[in-house]
Amino acid sequence: MSHKSIKQRKRGITMKNQRETILTGDRPTGKLHLGHYVGSLKNRVALQDVYNTFIIIADFQVLIDHLEDSHKVKTNIKEITLDYLGAGIDPAQTTIFIQSVVPQLAELTVYLSMLVTVSRLRRNPTVKSEAQRIGVDSEQDNITYGFLGYPVSQAADILLFRAHCVPAGEDQRPHIEQTRELANRFNKVFGKVFPLPELLISETPRLPGIFGEGKMSKSLGNAIYLSDSAEEVRRKVMSMYTDPTRKHASDPGHIEGNVVFTYLDAFDSDFERVADLKNKYQVGGIGDIELKNHLFEVLMNFLRPMQKRRNEFEKHPDYIQQVLKDGCARAVEIGEETMKLVRKAVGYNYADLFSAK
Amino acid sequence: MSHKSIKQRKRGITMKNQRETILTGDRPTGKLHLGHYVGSLKNRVALQDVYNTFIIIADFQVLIDHLEDSHKVKTNIKEITLDYLGAGIDPAQTTIFIQSVVPQLAELTVYLSMLVTVSRLRRNPTVKSEAQRIGVDSEQDNITYGFLGYPVSQAADILLFRAHCVPAGEDQRPHIEQTRELANRFNKVFGKVFPLPELLISETPRLPGIFGEGKMSKSLGNAIYLSDSAEEVRRKVMSMYTDPTRKHASDPGHIEGNVVFTYLDAFDSDFERVADLKNKYQVGGIGDIELKNHLFEVLMNFLRPMQKRRNEFEKHPDYIQQVLKDGCARAVEIGEETMKLVRKAVGYNYADLFSAK
Repeated sequence: MSHKSIKQRKRGITMKNQRETILTGDRPTGKLHLGHYVGSLKNRVALQDVYNTFIIIADFQVLIDHLEDSHKVKTNIKEITLDYLGAGIDPAQTTIFIQSVVPQLAELTVYLSMLVTVSRLRRNPTVKSEAQRIGVDSEQDNITYGFLGYPVSQAADILLFRAHCVPAGEDQRPHIEQTRELANRFNKVFGKVFPLPELLISETPRLPGIFGEGKMSKSLGNAIYLSDSAEEVRRKVMSMYTDPTRKHASDPGHIEGNVVFTYLDAFDSDFERVADLKNKYQVGGIGDIELKNHLFEVLMNFLRPMQKRRNEFEKHPDYIQQVLKDGCARAVEIGEETMKLVRKAVGYNYADLFSAK
Repeated sequence: MSHKSIKQRKRGITMKNQRETILTGDRPTGKLHLGHYVGSLKNRVALQDVYNTFIIIADFQVLIDHLEDSHKVKTNIKEITLDYLGAGIDPAQTTIFIQSVVPQLAELTVYLSMLVTVSRLRRNPTVKSEAQRIGVDSEQDNITYGFLGYPVSQAADILLFRAHCVPAGEDQRPHIEQTRELANRFNKVFGKVFPLPELLISETPRLPGIFGEGKMSKSLGNAIYLSDSAEEVRRKVMSMYTDPTRKHASDPGHIEGNVVFTYLDAFDSDFERVADLKNKYQVGGIGDIELKNHLFEVLMNFLRPMQKRRNEFEKHPDYIQQVLKDGCARAVEIGEETMKLVRKAVGYNYADLFSAK
């Protein structure tokens, strides 16, 4: 465990002698890949020992740009849950739940919707860049109402669990800012219910795709999945981008922009060996094939124990079902606790209206 | 019962040998007044014999322009329910429920949000005129996200109950059009779940306020409430706008724009007597006081039986609680039926994901 995560560990536990809560999650658009692992999953596995952790599988948010794929979401949820468990997420410490199964999320979204202007949402940089990614212009009105409300929905995800922190990269700061604004506004208008969540910065590297052109992503077809077979991993490693200027194994090669070395830096824990390989490569002392064979071994050594666990879990669908069922039940329970506070603050707590004296 | 409502009666029953469903409702911003009665409540009492009727008390929609009044809403709900029951709404035929208590409404809103663009919502004339009413410009971005989504929320209210008709005036047509578009789009993208609701036009007169300057409304302070005491009714009738050109009871008076006669036309079922009074007034044969005394009697004859029932119900808070509790439970039950269809159509039905084989 790194120095950073030890610091986080202390922070998470000492604040008030009980664990603070973090909220993190994924949209179930497909199986998880090495980019997810390096970018967030590894961090989550470490943080779950320290924080009361909620992982949301955000199926509503898939609809923003994958309306036509909605029927694949159920399978994706199963796969992603297997990926979590294989990677070491422990359901005894982490609540894994599905967004659409927790009605309190949609309910909280309604209240928050009244506390933010259309113009503020438009200015949200993440909405802008997400719009760009899916090919629409957030400054124009051709985005859907649901898409414009993405930050409100994300804020509800965080606030429903009264999360203290959200582990994410600097690029997610605008969402946290938006969430803090909404929490603040709610607290001011109706009374204090929500802690103001903080960004728990994780300085994780962004893993490039196997062809080196931008980050690893399903849609770009450049991903190595956590569940890829050895054959698939070998095929993908062998097709990796290295140094296009190099013709023969004896030619001096370049390290910079060489994806194989980027991956070795990320996954080979034997730093001396990596340094040695870099030296050899630069003087033409090792061929691409040999280098890639080494990376293949490194990746498989990393993936094999995960896949072994994953396969075990896959043989027990009952267990996966129970993990999700329990996770959703717990999310509903905590969500209902929060909504009781919300409804009371707003004055929409009708228990007394319903219960005869 | 008028010819029109008999036609409606037939229509509601014959379509498929079972009652069609209508959805109607109010925002709980205060007690109901004569304008509400003439404009909608009277019609609802007639329609409940014919249609499977749902009345939504739309507390979420109050937040759009009454954030600061949210703590009055609970009391308003009690009062409005008493007004309904006093006016003849029969809980055995009509489901009275509270919007925020039915989580399926917010859930359906999330799905519908993905099916309509921001620009389409901006063009909705009712959003425009509502914005004008509360002093903001819907073309600008200073409206809240929740306000822009008003038509989506209203569509969810209607569609959750798979309502066939919405009884309303011609001015509400844009909302029905928006709802039909959303239903249509959902059915096309995910599969047929929703009937396309129709506007059930009610040609109800719009009752002016007691000072004759626009419609009766709480905010204008020109309303006679269904629960007003005889003293209050008398005071309000006596302050009514009549004919400012007239100085003495023997002066010839004007009928047009004379609020007292507008009210007599609406509430005095003895048309001959009203015609006679009009003739007398025009030739200076009756004074304002005498005329107003007559209107006061007419209004009290109309209000007294309602108020008698209302007072009876008010003495039995347990009954009111039960009405609302049962109504909400039924709305949740029907709402859940619809959401099962919605989730299945989208592919977000996770029952099999949760249940072990």
